[in-house]
Amino acid sequence: MKLVIVGATGAVGSEIMSILAERSSFDGVDVTPVASARSAGRKLPYRDGNLEVVALDDGVFDGADLALFDVPDEVSREWAPRAVARGATVIDNSAAWRMDDDVPLVVPEVNPHDAQNVPKGIIASPNCTMLALVLPVAALHRRFILARLIVSSYQAASGAGKGGVDELWDQIETVAKEPDLVSRGLAREVLEGRETFGHPLAMNVIPQIGSPRDNGYTSEELKVGEETRKVLGAIGLPVTATCVRVPTMVGHGVSIHAEFHQPVSADEARSVLAESPGVEVVDDPANDVYPTPQIAAGRDPCFVGRIRQDLEDPNALELFAVADNLRKGAALNTVQIAELLLQA
Amino acid sequence: MKLVIVGATGAVGSEIMSILAERSSFDGVDVTPVASARSAGRKLPYRDGNLEVVALDDGVFDGADLALFDVPDEVSREWAPRAVARGATVIDNSAAWRMDDDVPLVVPEVNPHDAQNVPKGIIASPNCTMLALVLPVAALHRRFILARLIVSSYQAASGAGKGGVDELWDQIETVAKEPDLVSRGLAREVLEGRETFGHPLAMNVIPQIGSPRDNGYTSEELKVGEETRKVLGAIGLPVTATCVRVPTMVGHGVSIHAEFHQPVSADEARSVLAESPGVEVVDDPANDVYPTPQIAAGRDPCFVGRIRQDLEDPNALELFAVADNLRKGAALNTVQIAELLLQA
Repeated sequence: MKLVIVGATGAVGSEIMSILAERSSFDGVDVTPVASARSAGRKLPYRDGNLEVVALDDGVFDGADLALFDVPDEVSREWAPRAVARGATVIDNSAAWRMDDDVPLVVPEVNPHDAQNVPKGIIASPNCTMLALVLPVAALHRRFILARLIVSSYQAASGAGKGGVDELWDQIETVAKEPDLVSRGLAREVLEGRETFGHPLAMNVIPQIGSPRDNGYTSEELKVGEETRKVLGAIGLPVTATCVRVPTMVGHGVSIHAEFHQPVSADEARSVLAESPGVEVVDDPANDVYPTPQIAAGRDPCFVGRIRQDLEDPNALELFAVADNLRKGAALNTVQIAELLLQA
Repeated sequence: MKLVIVGATGAVGSEIMSILAERSSFDGVDVTPVASARSAGRKLPYRDGNLEVVALDDGVFDGADLALFDVPDEVSREWAPRAVARGATVIDNSAAWRMDDDVPLVVPEVNPHDAQNVPKGIIASPNCTMLALVLPVAALHRRFILARLIVSSYQAASGAGKGGVDELWDQIETVAKEPDLVSRGLAREVLEGRETFGHPLAMNVIPQIGSPRDNGYTSEELKVGEETRKVLGAIGLPVTATCVRVPTMVGHGVSIHAEFHQPVSADEARSVLAESPGVEVVDDPANDVYPTPQIAAGRDPCFVGRIRQDLEDPNALELFAVADNLRKGAALNTVQIAELLLQA
């Protein structure tokens, strides 16, 4: 069994390597890290030793069973079919293939069966924000049938890649020298918008992620709806999202208003969620127990709490969920899809 | 004309003093700053000189026409009636009186007429989060009639007072020394939850503000609904809120899903909002123009943007709004109520 990781030197790529190393399903699997030519020859730690990074080329896919891609959309659009042509099944983490009718979009806890039908040789892994939403929502949908979702997100800088992390870090160092301005809310006087984000992110909130579209929504907000419908197999489910960047490094949060076709109490919801794979209920507000990005960072589950029935609509629930956007939101889900294929 | 400020040395009290000094309606008004005995004798800058802080006592209200209170609920519960007994009209910024049927809750741009009927001699100013929501929503309600509000907030540390500001500042200084842990999302390893917030706030998001109630909502979340209904005079309007603290110092944001009794296009909403007093439309996402806490800090208007029609419900709009929680959210609204009374 040979497995290739394309984009192995990136933040998600490194996370994929470390998750593969943790999991016994990949014992004995031959792993090849692939990246752009300028990273070729670099050594990456893997299990007890190191693996040498190989430059991306058609040859790297010869004899490969699986190729895990974490690269920009345009690179995936070009290279995923080339990997398939050499015989590999591609598991892709970009947005390039997610909405293609011939490409399944898979969350292993939710729709594992979709990974059995792979006409193009490509399986897509969803957007990181949608992954914080879909695990609790899918579990509730199976039992109570969703009628509508209204979501506001609290997304970390690492969702924008290493550039986002570095930019926020630089800004934190800058504001830490300015107690007076910062305490008065005037961090804007020492910060500037930079390359990754349109405005300073430290001590701020940026209510726009992705590219604006003519209907006023952003690409990110539309993805949340489209991908949720596809994974749930819930064609026509109304989903509206507002995606907001907050000054955290890791862990995407979502405030969820979920309407169902029948009444749902908080207790019923809590007991369904407590039995759902990949979900961990943390819901004891009187003792300050609720999901936060710092609780979720570096951990696998989607944490969910603040579960309550809408006071005026017995068919609606409010919830707050957080998942590590680099793990469940990207690397872990990709590896879990690979495991599904290994078991098949 | 004599005006007393009770709680003059606090964050909101200082803001009240500086707003009074800016406004010609208060030229020639005799201003007395009042605080607890331990602040008595302190000098506070006001206009061209200084004013000496007087200790809270019944006598300070003798001859006073207006008393502006920014103190904890229990202090207001005791002292507002004592100020009224000495002949002052009280404008109170705590939660003590807001839901009293004999106390009007006033936002001068929205329900100025309610300030004309003051049976208890007390007028209340709303919660700071609700003030970021109510200005845009009231303008739209007058034209299209609200059917429902679903709100998620992004609230600054200063909403929890000076303790919140100091706690976040200490944490920012701590994390600024830990590039490696922080960049990996592991700020939890050097931070601890402290007195004001239940969890570390720097590099984090805390989805609980106020005290939890049996129905799963917090006191803060319930206030948003109750106070919005009272100010709008919209008895029975369904409002559901999720209140979340984010690591900013000043400026409360709200992501708003607003349903109306008729279809509303984004353009119609934008033109109604553009003509609304106290509201500033900042809505050009293609050029990174949208409301942020850093834009709102230190400024008077409620900034609103990201205005769009729900893709599946033509009667619903999504909006994002931010107001300075210390100014419009507290001090400014209180001073504006005082102005209403001066003009009457």
